[in-house]
Amino acid sequence: MTSMTTRRPVVRHAGGLRTRRPDTLAVEEPLEIHVGGRPFTVTMRTPGHDVELALGFLVSEGVVRTPADVVGARHCPDAALDAGGRPTHNVVEVSLAAGVTPPARAQHRMVSSACGVCGTESVDAVRARGARDLAADGARVSGDVIAVLPDRLRAAQRVFDRTGGLHAAGLFSPEGELRCLREDVGRHNAVDKVVGWALQHDALPLTGQVLQVSGRASFELVQKAWLAGCPVLAAVSAPSSLAVDLADRAGMTLVGFSRGDSFNVYTGEERVG
Amino acid sequence: MTSMTTRRPVVRHAGGLRTRRPDTLAVEEPLEIHVGGRPFTVTMRTPGHDVELALGFLVSEGVVRTPADVVGARHCPDAALDAGGRPTHNVVEVSLAAGVTPPARAQHRMVSSACGVCGTESVDAVRARGARDLAADGARVSGDVIAVLPDRLRAAQRVFDRTGGLHAAGLFSPEGELRCLREDVGRHNAVDKVVGWALQHDALPLTGQVLQVSGRASFELVQKAWLAGCPVLAAVSAPSSLAVDLADRAGMTLVGFSRGDSFNVYTGEERVG
Repeated sequence: MTSMTTRRPVVRHAGGLRTRRPDTLAVEEPLEIHVGGRPFTVTMRTPGHDVELALGFLVSEGVVRTPADVVGARHCPDAALDAGGRPTHNVVEVSLAAGVTPPARAQHRMVSSACGVCGTESVDAVRARGARDLAADGARVSGDVIAVLPDRLRAAQRVFDRTGGLHAAGLFSPEGELRCLREDVGRHNAVDKVVGWALQHDALPLTGQVLQVSGRASFELVQKAWLAGCPVLAAVSAPSSLAVDLADRAGMTLVGFSRGDSFNVYTGEERVG
Repeated sequence: MTSMTTRRPVVRHAGGLRTRRPDTLAVEEPLEIHVGGRPFTVTMRTPGHDVELALGFLVSEGVVRTPADVVGARHCPDAALDAGGRPTHNVVEVSLAAGVTPPARAQHRMVSSACGVCGTESVDAVRARGARDLAADGARVSGDVIAVLPDRLRAAQRVFDRTGGLHAAGLFSPEGELRCLREDVGRHNAVDKVVGWALQHDALPLTGQVLQVSGRASFELVQKAWLAGCPVLAAVSAPSSLAVDLADRAGMTLVGFSRGDSFNVYTGEERVG
């Protein structure tokens, strides 16, 4: 497996002094996802858990819902070589079961036939992918648990400590126990990897659970949590307007600015006990 | 113009107490970019400076290089309506001059015909878009100026203060004077807006100048700076491995972890005086 970190020389400037030293960086490499033998999309990601990433991405697209929807998923055996002649493991092939509709090109998924799109249409488009109403999910999470999740996420990040530059997503029980943590240069990739892990463990939908992310809550992250059936999404930083609108429509609890012992609940306050 | 912020009710939990109050959020809405009358791509962005965003995106794609390459760029007059019946201004139409090759679908731009891609190929693909070697750019920037740019960027962010959740990109002279600042929920969009501004002011390439960004430095941001001809890119947080590799190939100075009076120079140290 390609490493998640690498070292590069750096000149450190501090207090008017320069020091030459090695620095540890998070690896970023393209991952090409093939579905049914055809290229589907390319994403820049930190290597590792690539099959999870591909599967989680397909869950977010509404293509895959259960493990039975996938016949096989693996790295391409004829992977490209890097400058040193080593295989890069930068292609994952996914084979869908008979009867599962292959995805449209990812790029086209939001382009409407009319002149233009708006946030409301984007929200409707997520529901059209088969996202289920989460309002019936009876999860309850205490405020004390929500407040402690960012620290637990951060404490479990192995790669961040070495690079200072990775996003993370963690799946927690309502009691605050960590079930799965993934790191990536892209926060959407970290969530896809967690969702792909859940698919592989036949743990979808994520009923009654909490997804904690390290950065902001965008429309895209709420969409991924919704398609995975997760009733509570908590972010360390701010949500966007469309993230709140989508969470509200989904019946999801959306938490933001979760820092220290304080946090904001934007939607689904009834689950916070 | 659609507003960059909006208000939503929120329940604030702090020290065991709950307070219901309004909160100001950054707006996130889809922008559909049409080129030559055909849908090209959709990006989630904070409204405002949409034409700049579309133009900057096309510069990053290697499609547009000079103002003469663009015949016109404007919001679609038949824009979609939001839930309240107001036009959303979520479509921008760009008309290219005769002889300018329209872009391939953005989604396909990195998919190679062979089985797989790797970081090296991704770097080569950027050069193939017409990016010029920056090694000859004789810009010099003092360490004192580099150290102060994050504070100047932050001080100039008008929307961040109200929402706590926006990325920013700022174009600075080598003396540290701010020329253009743009904010967006997506850091890549903020950079596209700055580049689009520069195109509209016939200020490309960005010879001798410094682009300061609020977050991390990814492959994508280095690519955008390179295509815009900017010799110095400085980020508040960590760069990725591929960002450093691409900056090195471009002859660009890449600064990371720029905080307080300290920063790291990953490539192009000779420009830091």
